[in-house]
Amino acid sequence: MTAQLSRRGFLSGSAVVAGALAGAGAVVPVSRALAASTMGSGLAYGPAPGVAKLNANENPYGPSKKALEAMFEASSKGAYYVGDSVPRLLDMISERYGISPEYLSLSSGSSGVLTYLAVAKSKQGKILGPDLFWDTTTKAALRQGGEMKRIARTKDLSIDLDALYAAITPDVSMVQICNPNNPTGMVIPADELRKFCIKASKKCTVLVDEAYNEITDDPGANSMVSLVKEGYDVYVARTFSKIYGLAGMRVGYMIASPENTQLLQTYGLGNYAMNQAGVAAAVETYDDFEFLNYSKAKIQEARGIILDAVKKNGLKAAPSETSFVFVDLGKLNAEKFRQEMASHQVLIRGIYQDYTHWSRVSCGLIPDVKQYAAALPKVLEAMKA
Amino acid sequence: MTAQLSRRGFLSGSAVVAGALAGAGAVVPVSRALAASTMGSGLAYGPAPGVAKLNANENPYGPSKKALEAMFEASSKGAYYVGDSVPRLLDMISERYGISPEYLSLSSGSSGVLTYLAVAKSKQGKILGPDLFWDTTTKAALRQGGEMKRIARTKDLSIDLDALYAAITPDVSMVQICNPNNPTGMVIPADELRKFCIKASKKCTVLVDEAYNEITDDPGANSMVSLVKEGYDVYVARTFSKIYGLAGMRVGYMIASPENTQLLQTYGLGNYAMNQAGVAAAVETYDDFEFLNYSKAKIQEARGIILDAVKKNGLKAAPSETSFVFVDLGKLNAEKFRQEMASHQVLIRGIYQDYTHWSRVSCGLIPDVKQYAAALPKVLEAMKA
Repeated sequence: MTAQLSRRGFLSGSAVVAGALAGAGAVVPVSRALAASTMGSGLAYGPAPGVAKLNANENPYGPSKKALEAMFEASSKGAYYVGDSVPRLLDMISERYGISPEYLSLSSGSSGVLTYLAVAKSKQGKILGPDLFWDTTTKAALRQGGEMKRIARTKDLSIDLDALYAAITPDVSMVQICNPNNPTGMVIPADELRKFCIKASKKCTVLVDEAYNEITDDPGANSMVSLVKEGYDVYVARTFSKIYGLAGMRVGYMIASPENTQLLQTYGLGNYAMNQAGVAAAVETYDDFEFLNYSKAKIQEARGIILDAVKKNGLKAAPSETSFVFVDLGKLNAEKFRQEMASHQVLIRGIYQDYTHWSRVSCGLIPDVKQYAAALPKVLEAMKA
Repeated sequence: MTAQLSRRGFLSGSAVVAGALAGAGAVVPVSRALAASTMGSGLAYGPAPGVAKLNANENPYGPSKKALEAMFEASSKGAYYVGDSVPRLLDMISERYGISPEYLSLSSGSSGVLTYLAVAKSKQGKILGPDLFWDTTTKAALRQGGEMKRIARTKDLSIDLDALYAAITPDVSMVQICNPNNPTGMVIPADELRKFCIKASKKCTVLVDEAYNEITDDPGANSMVSLVKEGYDVYVARTFSKIYGLAGMRVGYMIASPENTQLLQTYGLGNYAMNQAGVAAAVETYDDFEFLNYSKAKIQEARGIILDAVKKNGLKAAPSETSFVFVDLGKLNAEKFRQEMASHQVLIRGIYQDYTHWSRVSCGLIPDVKQYAAALPKVLEAMKA
């Protein structure tokens, strides 16, 4: 039976002889499966050799060894829909926060829950946000007819909470803050944000996207989850895509009151959005503090190298408490700068909106940020000419 | 550094000593990762030993060995968002159908695209469908304010296409058909469905959910994809959850004209819905005809065992061309029947809607369907008493 015949048989439906794969079944020994896996599928993942990938904020040290083991096991059961692993993950998260699972919604990355909430809230009014933040999911709601409102940019790129509060007019249904903010990397002082959330949540719903919380200097103080517990109309989004090193495995979640959770879930896919490998990996990584601490220390080390290089070359940067640095290029164009960096095999981001002279670089592997640091004087020299 | 200290350090943000995991990095040797994996995560997947799981339609022979290998490789790159693997999968699918990738939308299972389309179309009018079909995703749109309309049940549980066509009133935006239908397992004669789709698509959008197409006797003739190519207002949903054995890995897709695809994608999450392991597994399984033919033959064998048992015990069943059988219990209650079967460690489905005397059993592993066959006379006897 040649492959062509097999194909024709399968696609057309002609009779098929069973037994060709006798012995195949749900349980394939992992060792046997892996024997051939070194050959690889030919699919490309991550950066090419020699290329410094600093254009995205994933934790380059992930997935952890424990996550990898869990994914191997879970994948072998990939014929079944997610089962016990979802309640296990919900239990772990709710236990840490001292809440019940009714406060939680899982989704495919936090992109899922953020999009669902944006859609839900844009039916009730406009979504208010800073001039610059990670608004990809908010924009998804705009494509469905939602509206957005932004406050003006400040000189130091910080979020003006007074201006934000003043902008909560009756046509606004939700105010959204990304903290630390992406792409600026800046953190709002915890007490100020807390006061703002309490005040603002009396006028509209407040959404805080805490994708990078774990990388900040004081994650506990910086998180607004306690406000959810205290009963305020606050949603907090978290993700396994950043410090947990699982961006490609798609697990994120929203923390909100049971009532708010119910509204959110009206717009979601429930467990149909969750895959076996991702959930298993999240379960294993959530309390793998050795891996998490290691990753955080390495990210901080990489940030130090970037900031040193920036300073040595006469540039400034927004104060970052996360896995990327927003560099002020002065009079240089950020897209031109990106292209010059690319010619040195260093991938960074180009222009955001009208921030033509700001450049985001991520805290990648140490050799990669060193490649950035080495390229920086050459790029600046080339751009002078 | 104890685990407790590590935890406190990570969660509070106090200084962390790097190097504890020196040597850890993005590339963990698979062999090393697996050394500990035999210990297992303690998470439960699939049925418990001794339990015949016949209450869901997953292919119990999946994932294939090739899929497993691909997932192992892809998981190790799980820190990165899906990249090259998505265009590869799109290319494979579009090549087979002779369409361009602009006709395709991937999502987390076909649940994703089916839900997005239900939401999109319910904004334009009611969604029309048979009395009984897999309407889970349609119901998601109802939660968001959509409306549904159903035609009456027929005596033999077939879908009355004339009645369906007559029900396409101006307030209907889309008519949805699941073919083969779930839970009946019945296939609409290909030429009749084709004629209906052509006629109906001139009055409203037509959605055909072909989740089980590959298991039918003539998949090529039964698929309505050719109508999409011919320019009709038809959407066709397909999935890697059934014969491909990847339900837990969440990959499905919709085939529609570029214009219809654009509408659908307005409501979706794009690549944020896709995970590395799932996409890699789909790529490897899509043309693994040896595995697919084997699985189909085993499913047919299981179906034969179920049908034999049904007949021997004086019952009848709807004519199935898929991986489950809808059994007519005569006067017996399907929920009571389910409970009796469960007492014999056989898991099947209970009542659907008001189909109180119909019972769905899936074509699971051969020993499992034999367990069903062995339990059947005992259950029937017990229910007589």
